[in-house]
Amino acid sequence: MEKKVIKVGMMGFGTVGTGVVRIIRGHQEDLLKKSGLKIEIEKILVQNIDKKRNLSVPSHLLTVNPEEILYAKEIDVIIEVMGGIHPAKEYILAALEQGKHVVTANKDLMALYGDEILSKAKEKKCDVYYEASVAGGIPILRALMDSFSSDRITKITGIVNGTTNYILSKMSHEGADYTEALQEAQALGYAEADPTSDVEGLDAARKMVILSTLGFHIPTTLDEVSVKGISQISKEDIAYGKKLGYEMKLLGLAEQNEDGIEISVEPTLVHLSHPLSSVHGVFNAIYVHGEAVGETMFYGAGAGELPTATSVVSDLVSVVKNIRLAINGQNITSSYKEKKCKSDNEKYCKYFLRLVVSDQAGVFTKITQLFADQKISLSTILQQPYQHTQLAEVIMITHETAKSSFDQAIRQMENMPIIKEIKSFYRVEGGEAEWLAS
Amino acid sequence: MEKKVIKVGMMGFGTVGTGVVRIIRGHQEDLLKKSGLKIEIEKILVQNIDKKRNLSVPSHLLTVNPEEILYAKEIDVIIEVMGGIHPAKEYILAALEQGKHVVTANKDLMALYGDEILSKAKEKKCDVYYEASVAGGIPILRALMDSFSSDRITKITGIVNGTTNYILSKMSHEGADYTEALQEAQALGYAEADPTSDVEGLDAARKMVILSTLGFHIPTTLDEVSVKGISQISKEDIAYGKKLGYEMKLLGLAEQNEDGIEISVEPTLVHLSHPLSSVHGVFNAIYVHGEAVGETMFYGAGAGELPTATSVVSDLVSVVKNIRLAINGQNITSSYKEKKCKSDNEKYCKYFLRLVVSDQAGVFTKITQLFADQKISLSTILQQPYQHTQLAEVIMITHETAKSSFDQAIRQMENMPIIKEIKSFYRVEGGEAEWLAS
Repeated sequence: MEKKVIKVGMMGFGTVGTGVVRIIRGHQEDLLKKSGLKIEIEKILVQNIDKKRNLSVPSHLLTVNPEEILYAKEIDVIIEVMGGIHPAKEYILAALEQGKHVVTANKDLMALYGDEILSKAKEKKCDVYYEASVAGGIPILRALMDSFSSDRITKITGIVNGTTNYILSKMSHEGADYTEALQEAQALGYAEADPTSDVEGLDAARKMVILSTLGFHIPTTLDEVSVKGISQISKEDIAYGKKLGYEMKLLGLAEQNEDGIEISVEPTLVHLSHPLSSVHGVFNAIYVHGEAVGETMFYGAGAGELPTATSVVSDLVSVVKNIRLAINGQNITSSYKEKKCKSDNEKYCKYFLRLVVSDQAGVFTKITQLFADQKISLSTILQQPYQHTQLAEVIMITHETAKSSFDQAIRQMENMPIIKEIKSFYRVEGGEAEWLAS
Repeated sequence: MEKKVIKVGMMGFGTVGTGVVRIIRGHQEDLLKKSGLKIEIEKILVQNIDKKRNLSVPSHLLTVNPEEILYAKEIDVIIEVMGGIHPAKEYILAALEQGKHVVTANKDLMALYGDEILSKAKEKKCDVYYEASVAGGIPILRALMDSFSSDRITKITGIVNGTTNYILSKMSHEGADYTEALQEAQALGYAEADPTSDVEGLDAARKMVILSTLGFHIPTTLDEVSVKGISQISKEDIAYGKKLGYEMKLLGLAEQNEDGIEISVEPTLVHLSHPLSSVHGVFNAIYVHGEAVGETMFYGAGAGELPTATSVVSDLVSVVKNIRLAINGQNITSSYKEKKCKSDNEKYCKYFLRLVVSDQAGVFTKITQLFADQKISLSTILQQPYQHTQLAEVIMITHETAKSSFDQAIRQMENMPIIKEIKSFYRVEGGEAEWLAS
């Protein structure tokens, strides 16, 4: 007997869950046309049934007992929007075990246990869709899975955390310092009371794991991501970057070439000619470089009730279409390429470096000699007096250089008496520096 | 018996066709992993077998006889990259009649006869994919079909013609005039010897028909698109736009609200805060506004051998997957909404207007009175002496106003003796004007 109605169990009823219910209610007719079947929310798992909510639903829809969803025969699809690792992981595995399809917005879970979940889904011929786990409303996972299926992706760079992009935009545009900008982000609800996961780059790192696994067909894990957050960035660094033609961004980067793969999240000076440099505020954008397609960029809201819920419901429509066509579990892309991570002398990039040095004859020669010894060549050097002292401030941008050489140069500078302080250094992405009028 | 190899017949072997062969040859193993079946080009329809080509293929692959492809039992899929309406349309319909699936890059055909082709495909349970017909390597059609399937698209704006965007970027960045910029575009191969279809907006109009049909689920046709090209744009217009904080772009726009739909292609002053304003050169970008997802933008190469061929081969991979799953013809999205086109008094936008007027007392009052009579309010007015004459130049930007009112105002000004010349007027998109230092 063919199904006429698809019943959905939702686990979690926070911001995204509320959006999901709103969209399903508001677009019933469109969803029927697009998926071919009626979609109904049958049960919603909550922590507290009596809690006051922004959206009212009949109380018989709510339950505190996960088994009413996981073992309900009439429920075909689970939407997991509760977040966190446990018990979300156990619920999803139990749902798959019961032959239920899964749509999840849980990046932490997919970054850490994506492989296990997808294997179980494959075994059970179930769908798992997780577009909402990366960059909210931006359909980047679909693009990587379908649209670039005939291409070889070589590089994915992205602004995948709205909180840090809001903070950096504020520091850049208004000259705010980090603490002020963070406080404002918190006041506006863009940053959490404990902002660690966002500002230290962990949230972005998880998204980069998901993106690189899908884009490169290589199973990547979180401990392969080199992560650096934004809490040490000063407004001076941002101002110097701007003067040289760069915007400071917390950039996720995943790159593959014949040497292997490299994944990182770190503050990066992005050249103003690069489309990512003009992505401001809480917006996200992902820049994909494919051998054939060249450069493409996907831009949009990275979070928020309705953008994220749009991705969840679009995934649900895909699951429902698959149910109608009886082809569930076919869209799981397995990683089929062998993994080789680049070593530090296979990782190349340009660097920005800011030093405070003794302002005396011969200092410059010593520094440039040190770089020459490491075979690091410099594209831009600026020197100026430092705060009315006998010291000088030196800013340098290198040409492409191996990470191992640059790290070695930094270690040597730490032991040079003429170098008073290594103020900061950052990765540089995009075009050449150009001294702009302030 | 299950198929192991999918055989493809390609019609046309120009730039895109060459790219398709290159990608299929270069990525055999990846394509097998991704689609599950081996893909082989079986025959290529050409006009002249002996023509010298950039890419050599065994001569037995080439044919001048379309029937060797259309009626070849072993061929499962047709790739149509010959372009033009006839005989491409007849070939595609014949292929569908024979139960062959179709991938096409032909925007002219899909804009004019998309409905007929998709109906035939549906009838024959065949696939028709045409991602490459709009914006080359940017997967915008998939995004509209799948990713935003749970949302209601309200507005699509796009830079969908690389030739005109190259010309306008050149005029804007280098102060070139239209003729110079066009000549350079022709010298670089970005514009054709007869550039009419690009510069007069016809190419963009066809793409907007495809986008709005898909995005709004309403069958739109070319004669519903109001089209204006770029050949009348002066470098003064561009310079004034810049001074007010706008970039001149040839913008395709499709909008729907409760009054109906509106589709246009016209030179538009796009505010610098809008992401489309920073899309330069031959790049394309499409900005989609959905009720739930908010603003998203898709950016990339709009043309070129490999970007366009990437879209064609990705479509081919989708067809091959569908063959393996025996679900061809399921992805054809029919229009199911009724069409109502907005009348001119339901179309609202802001306008830029540049006039030359007599520099005498009372002139300003007369002009502003005329606008007040039409209930048009002004957000910005500038007046300055005009070329050492007794005349003045007046530049105005209106608030949102009905097209019918603005057109009426223009007609009245044509008959006012104090108005010496209506230099130009343009649609304005995005934020408010702000007088910037030159």
